[in-house]
Amino acid sequence: MKIALDVMGGDFAPQNPMGGVKLALEELRQIDKIYLVGQPEAIEREMRAQGIPMSDRLEIVSAMQIVDMSDSGLDAVRKKKDSSITRAVDLVKEGKADAVVSAGHTGAAVTASLIKLRTLPHIERPAIAAIMPSMTMPWVLIDAGANPDSLPEHLVQNAIMGSAYAKHVLGRDNPKVGLMSNGTEEEKGNALCKETGKLLKKTPGLNFVGNVEGHDLWETPPDVVVCDGFTGNIILKTSEALAHAMFAMIKEGIMSTTRTKIGGMLAKPAFKAIHKKTSADEAGGMPLLGLNGITIISHGSASAYAMKNALRMACETIRHSLNPHIEAAIGVHLDNNASAGEEEG
Amino acid sequence: MKIALDVMGGDFAPQNPMGGVKLALEELRQIDKIYLVGQPEAIEREMRAQGIPMSDRLEIVSAMQIVDMSDSGLDAVRKKKDSSITRAVDLVKEGKADAVVSAGHTGAAVTASLIKLRTLPHIERPAIAAIMPSMTMPWVLIDAGANPDSLPEHLVQNAIMGSAYAKHVLGRDNPKVGLMSNGTEEEKGNALCKETGKLLKKTPGLNFVGNVEGHDLWETPPDVVVCDGFTGNIILKTSEALAHAMFAMIKEGIMSTTRTKIGGMLAKPAFKAIHKKTSADEAGGMPLLGLNGITIISHGSASAYAMKNALRMACETIRHSLNPHIEAAIGVHLDNNASAGEEEG
Repeated sequence: MKIALDVMGGDFAPQNPMGGVKLALEELRQIDKIYLVGQPEAIEREMRAQGIPMSDRLEIVSAMQIVDMSDSGLDAVRKKKDSSITRAVDLVKEGKADAVVSAGHTGAAVTASLIKLRTLPHIERPAIAAIMPSMTMPWVLIDAGANPDSLPEHLVQNAIMGSAYAKHVLGRDNPKVGLMSNGTEEEKGNALCKETGKLLKKTPGLNFVGNVEGHDLWETPPDVVVCDGFTGNIILKTSEALAHAMFAMIKEGIMSTTRTKIGGMLAKPAFKAIHKKTSADEAGGMPLLGLNGITIISHGSASAYAMKNALRMACETIRHSLNPHIEAAIGVHLDNNASAGEEEG
Repeated sequence: MKIALDVMGGDFAPQNPMGGVKLALEELRQIDKIYLVGQPEAIEREMRAQGIPMSDRLEIVSAMQIVDMSDSGLDAVRKKKDSSITRAVDLVKEGKADAVVSAGHTGAAVTASLIKLRTLPHIERPAIAAIMPSMTMPWVLIDAGANPDSLPEHLVQNAIMGSAYAKHVLGRDNPKVGLMSNGTEEEKGNALCKETGKLLKKTPGLNFVGNVEGHDLWETPPDVVVCDGFTGNIILKTSEALAHAMFAMIKEGIMSTTRTKIGGMLAKPAFKAIHKKTSADEAGGMPLLGLNGITIISHGSASAYAMKNALRMACETIRHSLNPHIEAAIGVHLDNNASAGEEEG
């Protein structure tokens, strides 16, 4: 497997992406090559600093421009043709790499992937699938932020893609698909949600279980939760922020007296396990589904450990040949629509 | 102050609403009367069970019908004219009570309040203001679920109402108002959010601070966060569920070994403080703003303690004469729109 890594993307670049490379070279033997895309001098300096020797599993690909957070996604791609994200996506487009991984500007990664790789047939827009933690098992939140304005048919495509990911990559049998709403009752929802619910009910091959609400997400989530990218991004970030805040408050509370300090020290193993369970670092990245290619988007603040996990996610997505499965599932949906149309007509 | 309580509303009715009454009679001396609205026999039985003596601060008002969770809000009001929520709102409409408190069917409480009390002049729709916890200070999330489909002008009204609540009830000086989005940059957002942002910028008397994202809500939230009722309800419930799940996971983790059990016992005071900080029970209820009257909506699963706090919130909202302040703030907004129209015309 060959992966193109946007070494300059993220709040702690190039340090953390290269830290991820170091871990991945040891742990992920299935990786034949990582293309290190970015400013060669900065990459080489970081390799020296972290003691990463050059090998035939690494290849530096020059990209001199850097995307700023103030750039729009489209500008980043159109005006910065020599940026690390556009060059990295080019490697996938040219067939040199099987997947691209970036912790940089999400809009730029989405736009570069969309323009250069294009979507799979009959997929109108790619969607970000976030692998979310819960008390029981991880679940797929789709769309976690690619399309803030979605139409019902986009959400149906999200459901099909998310279901394919849950089945073929996460290994879920007949994955349950829920529709994000403000209540579990069928009449709850905004206009987009209600219209989508009607379509999902008649989508073949989907195990649609109806509306889910915020209360369901942590205890008994379905395998896949479908929503527009505005709502999904808010769920993702609110959850991350709250989990982070809870740990910060617990730490502060525990440090306040000698008694609680000792208690905290003894209880530490319990906290560590929960921190691991709720941390976005474990998934490491989020696949951008619906592309004619594989793009994994990582958190801007991703640690070296998270970057390694994002590289692992790229490997998993390659290994399970996800895209042909998505194409097949969309095909079933279209055939059904066509025959339904004939019956109606 | 006189308050009408929907004794039959909520998952644990009449027990918890009456438990709230018992606590409120002791703690909230400013309450002159609580109208106990519901089935008299059930109320009297509960008073005996909890040892609440009849007094001139209590008055039972008969309402024999019960709203089911499967009723639509409109049906609940139109078809069940003798339900506890409609009778309770009637008491406010007739001027006998200053506010109504209900932990029952939210849609029914919103619809009954809207139909019977009507909105304040120039407010098109009422909105639920949830008082949310954070690491620093509580903040107002508006709309937390009254209107799943909102227009930009509704969100501007939410901003004005939320700001008035933060200023006059929570005592915030020049409250900061943020717009919920999928990123802090101005170009982020769905169509509703972007259009609302343009309007909020030109709304006089508002301290509008721009977009906020999920990451901002727990560490440094503004005083007020504005969104549609679909998004707000999802934020509210996701946050409640995650805080609940974190405590459940911590408990499970701590109970797993003798070492962590002892640690947990010692650290307990720290957890208790955080539980109190993050629990919806502390606010107890959510004011439904924009009505020509005061309605406080409590959580379906509200404890007796939460119901007492909801009654206290009703008292606070009455004491600060919130509605005239909202009317004044809406007036400034309209005057400005009128003069802007003249300038443009």
